[in-house]
Amino acid sequence: MRHAIALLPLLVLAAPAAAQQADDLNRIIDEGLNHSQVMQTAQHLTDDIGGRMTNSPQMRQAEAWTAEQFRAWGLSNVHKQGFRFGRGWWIASAYARMTAPRPLMLTSIPVAWTPPTSGTISAPIVVAPMKKERDFAAWRGKLAGKIVLVSMPGEGSEPGEPAFKRLKGEDIEKLDTYRQPKFDPDGLEKLLREIAFTRKLDAFLKAEGAVAWARISHRDGKLLHGEGYDFQVGGTPALPGIEIAAEDYRRLARLAKTGPAPVLEINSDVRFDDSDVNAYNIIAEIPGSDPKAGYVMAGAHLDSWVAGDGAADNGAGSAMIMEAARILAKLGVKPKRTIRFALWAGEEQGLFGSMAYVDQYLATRAPGPAEEEGSEAMYFRYKYRFPITPKPGYGDLKAYFNIDNGSGKLRGVHAEGNVAAVPLLREWLGPFAGMGATSVVSSPTGGTDHVFMQAVGVPGYQFVQDPLDYSSRIHHSGMDTFDHLKAEDMRQGSVVLAGMLLQAANSAKTLPRMPLPTQGTPTDPFKYDDPADD
Amino acid sequence: MRHAIALLPLLVLAAPAAAQQADDLNRIIDEGLNHSQVMQTAQHLTDDIGGRMTNSPQMRQAEAWTAEQFRAWGLSNVHKQGFRFGRGWWIASAYARMTAPRPLMLTSIPVAWTPPTSGTISAPIVVAPMKKERDFAAWRGKLAGKIVLVSMPGEGSEPGEPAFKRLKGEDIEKLDTYRQPKFDPDGLEKLLREIAFTRKLDAFLKAEGAVAWARISHRDGKLLHGEGYDFQVGGTPALPGIEIAAEDYRRLARLAKTGPAPVLEINSDVRFDDSDVNAYNIIAEIPGSDPKAGYVMAGAHLDSWVAGDGAADNGAGSAMIMEAARILAKLGVKPKRTIRFALWAGEEQGLFGSMAYVDQYLATRAPGPAEEEGSEAMYFRYKYRFPITPKPGYGDLKAYFNIDNGSGKLRGVHAEGNVAAVPLLREWLGPFAGMGATSVVSSPTGGTDHVFMQAVGVPGYQFVQDPLDYSSRIHHSGMDTFDHLKAEDMRQGSVVLAGMLLQAANSAKTLPRMPLPTQGTPTDPFKYDDPADD
Repeated sequence: MRHAIALLPLLVLAAPAAAQQADDLNRIIDEGLNHSQVMQTAQHLTDDIGGRMTNSPQMRQAEAWTAEQFRAWGLSNVHKQGFRFGRGWWIASAYARMTAPRPLMLTSIPVAWTPPTSGTISAPIVVAPMKKERDFAAWRGKLAGKIVLVSMPGEGSEPGEPAFKRLKGEDIEKLDTYRQPKFDPDGLEKLLREIAFTRKLDAFLKAEGAVAWARISHRDGKLLHGEGYDFQVGGTPALPGIEIAAEDYRRLARLAKTGPAPVLEINSDVRFDDSDVNAYNIIAEIPGSDPKAGYVMAGAHLDSWVAGDGAADNGAGSAMIMEAARILAKLGVKPKRTIRFALWAGEEQGLFGSMAYVDQYLATRAPGPAEEEGSEAMYFRYKYRFPITPKPGYGDLKAYFNIDNGSGKLRGVHAEGNVAAVPLLREWLGPFAGMGATSVVSSPTGGTDHVFMQAVGVPGYQFVQDPLDYSSRIHHSGMDTFDHLKAEDMRQGSVVLAGMLLQAANSAKTLPRMPLPTQGTPTDPFKYDDPADD
Repeated sequence: MRHAIALLPLLVLAAPAAAQQADDLNRIIDEGLNHSQVMQTAQHLTDDIGGRMTNSPQMRQAEAWTAEQFRAWGLSNVHKQGFRFGRGWWIASAYARMTAPRPLMLTSIPVAWTPPTSGTISAPIVVAPMKKERDFAAWRGKLAGKIVLVSMPGEGSEPGEPAFKRLKGEDIEKLDTYRQPKFDPDGLEKLLREIAFTRKLDAFLKAEGAVAWARISHRDGKLLHGEGYDFQVGGTPALPGIEIAAEDYRRLARLAKTGPAPVLEINSDVRFDDSDVNAYNIIAEIPGSDPKAGYVMAGAHLDSWVAGDGAADNGAGSAMIMEAARILAKLGVKPKRTIRFALWAGEEQGLFGSMAYVDQYLATRAPGPAEEEGSEAMYFRYKYRFPITPKPGYGDLKAYFNIDNGSGKLRGVHAEGNVAAVPLLREWLGPFAGMGATSVVSSPTGGTDHVFMQAVGVPGYQFVQDPLDYSSRIHHSGMDTFDHLKAEDMRQGSVVLAGMLLQAANSAKTLPRMPLPTQGTPTDPFKYDDPADD
C-alpha cells in the first residue's frame, strides 16, 4: 500500500491534467473546424504574396507577414533566425516566341537565378543535348550566336495512373515497411559530379559564344517549373537560361532536325536583389511551464519556386503549421514543454533553413569542402560529414513534426525508421483515427526539413498525407496554386497537428531517441560504377 | 446442273479477284508498316504548318500541300471543293500579364476570331460572370474601362481516372449498345439561345465601355484552347477576348474578391485574312473500273484550332486518310468502285466542309433561317431541317469512313445505329482482328464529318479508336502536338483503313442503307424546361 500511497499525489495531479488535455483536444477540433483560418492564411501566402523564392522580395513579404500573424495571434518569442544564403531573384516579365519558320508563342519560364537577357534577344537554335563534359567536344565551334537547346527532347508521356489519389488501407500498409539505411560515399561523389555539370555547361556555352540556353520541362502537358540552383552572390551563370514546355521544346527539336533551325526571340526581364544575403527562418512559441522538460516543434518550409504560387509546396504546410499555432494560442493552452513553430527558408535549394537550425541549436558536423559552401552540393554532402558533435540543446528537442507533402489530409506519421517510437506516436495519433489519421508506419521519407534532424539523431517525423495530385502534376509546377488546395484536408491537418503537439508537449513519456549517428560501413562496397555513366 | 453451269463464269471471275484482293491486303500491310509515310505526313501538317484554323494562312498552306502530295502520289481527280465560310484569323503574337498587385505572366491565348487589342492595353479587371441576358442588369454601369472576367471561376479538378487509356474488351462491349434516336426541337431552340448569348454579351460589354473580356479555360492544369465561333465577315466581335488558364483565372477572381481589382496588361496581335472567304475541301481519288458501281470514301478534317498544332485533332486522321490513299495508289490497285478521299475544312466550327459536300453531291435539306447562315447555329439546326431532297448522286456513295478521334489504334467500327450493316462491316474488318481492330459496335458517335451523311441516310461510319489521352487533355488544347501522336497506332490505322476501303470498293455486296430520314416525333413531348435554366 505504500506504493499506492506514494503515488497518490501524482494521480491527483495527473487525473485533472489528463482530463484537461482531453477537453483541449475537443477544443482544438472546435476551433480548427468551426473557426478555421487555415485557408485564409494559405490564400494570403499564395495569391497575395505569390511564389516565394528564398531572398526574393516576395519571400521578404512572407517573412514579415507570417511573423506579424504569429504576434497577432499571441505567440511568444516570435523572431527570425538568419543564415547566409545568397541572392534574391524574381521575374518581372518574360516570354519566348518562335519567329521562324512560323510565328508561335512558346510556353516558357526563366530558370531560377539565371541572368536577364539584354532586352529582347533573337537567335537561331541549335539542339545540342549535353550531359557530361565529354559531350562538349561534339559541339565546339558550333554554338556561337546560338540559343542552345541542351536537353534530349524525349517523348510524350502516357499517364496510366489517375493524377489525383487518396490513400487506401493497402497503400498505407505498404508504407509500413522498414527500410534499411544506406551509406554510399561513391554514389555521393558521382552525384556531386553530375550536379556540378550545370556550371561547367554554362562556362562552356559562354566560351563558345552562345547567347542563351534552353532546357525541356521535366513534365509534359505544358507544365513549367524553372528550378535553378546557382543562387550564390558571384555564382550567377553567365548566360540566360529558360525552361520550355515539353511540347514546345520537342517541336523545336523536330523542326531543327528536319529543316532550317528555328529562330527564337527571348525576353527574360528577371531581377536580382542583393540587399540582404541572409535568409530567415521564422520561429514562434507557446511557452512551456517546465523549463527543464525541453520542447517540441513543428515546421514547414515557407519558401517555394515561382512557376506557381508555392501553394501545395509548401504554402499548405506553412498554413497548417501557422493554424496549429493559432489554435493552440487561441485556446490558451499551458503545456509542460514549450511548443515551437518554424517556417523554414531555403528548403527548395537544399533544406538550408532547417540545416541552419540544426547547426545553431542541435549539433555540428565535420566541415564539408569549402568550395561547396552555400551550394546545392552541401545538401547532398550533409549526411556524409562525420563526426557529429551535439550542442548543449541537443537533448531538448523531444519531437519535431514536419509537413511538406501538399494539402492532403494527414493519414498518419512516418516513424522514419525509429521503430521504438511507434507505440507512443500511435498513442498520440489515436484520437484522430476517425478523421482518417490512423497509422504510424515505419518507412522513412526524404527531401524535406526533418531529414537533417533525423540525420543527427533527433526525433524528427514527417506525416503521411493523402497524395492528391501533388507528385503527378502540382509539385513545383505552374499549377501549384491555391485552387488545388483542399480546404477540408487542411483543416483536418491543422487539428491533427495541434493535437499531436499538445500531447507531445504534455506527455509523461518522451519519444525514444536514435543513437548518435556515426560514419557507416559502405552498404555495397563491392559495386563497380559503370564508367559509361560518368 | 444448269444452275451450277450458269454460275461458272462468275466463279471463274470471282476467284482470281478474291485471291488478288487477299494478296492486296497483305501488300497494304507491307507498304503501310514497312514503308510507312504516315508520321512524316503528320509531322509536316503539325510542326511545319502548325495549327490550321479554317481560312488562315496555315490552312491555305495545308490545302496546297495536301493536294500536292495527293498528286505526287498518283491520286486522280485531285481538286478542291470551295464553299463560303468567312474570315481567316491567326495569332502573330500575344500575351497577358498581371501588373498589380504583383507582376505575373499569365498563361493565356486570344479567343479565335476576336479582334486585336490596339497595341498593349492595360486596365483593372472586374469579375462579372454572365450566362444569360438577365445577368446584364447587375453589371450595368460597372464595366466601363474594365477587362471583364465573364466566367465563374469554379474549382480545381480532381482527375480520378488515368489520363491515358486503351480500350479493354469490356470497354468495347459497352460500345455495342444500340442507342435510340432523339428528336428534341425544344431542346434545339434552347441550345440556340444559349450559343447566341456570346454575341449579345459582346454587344453589352461594348455598350458599357468595357475594353476587353476574358474567360476561364474549360480544363485546368494550365491548358488553353481558345475556341471561338464568330468567323463571319461582318460578324467579328467588338471587343478583344482572351482565354486565361484556369489557375490564373481563379487567382484573379480571388484577388478581386479579397482586395483591390488586379490590373492586367493584354497584347493580342491577331490578324484577319479576308483575301478569300471560301474554305476548301481537298478531294482525291483512286478511279474505279465500273462507273455504275458508285464510290466509297474516307475523310478526316484538316482544319484545327491553334492552341496546339492540330495533331490528334485532326492531323492524325488527315495523315491516316492520306497514307491510305498513298498506299493504295502505290500498290496500283484497280478497284471496281472509285475510292474517294476527302480532307474537310470548317469542321471545328460546325462540320461545314462535309455539310457542303452533302449539299453539293448527296442531298439538300429545307433551308434554315437566313440569319443563321454561316454561323455555329447552322450546325445545331442542320438535322432539324426537313424535308430532305436527294440529289442524283445520292445513291452513289456506298460507304463513308471517318477518322477523328486522335491517333489511337483503330479497334473497330461504329455501325452508327445501322444494325443491318453489322455483318458486312464485320466481314471487311475480319482480316485486321490480330491488329486489334476486332469489333463492329452498334452505337453512334457524333460531332464529326460522317454525321451529316448519316443525317441524310447515307452510310457513314466512324471508327472506334483507342482513346489514349485525346479527351482527357489533348483535344483542342495547347498540348495537341505531334509528340503525343502514337506512330504504331497511326500505321495500324492507315493499314486498316486502306484495307476496309479496298474491300468496300470491290465488294459484291453493298452496305444496307437507312430509309430517307423524315421529321420525327418529339422524343419527350411532355417535358417542361425549367425556366430558371433560361
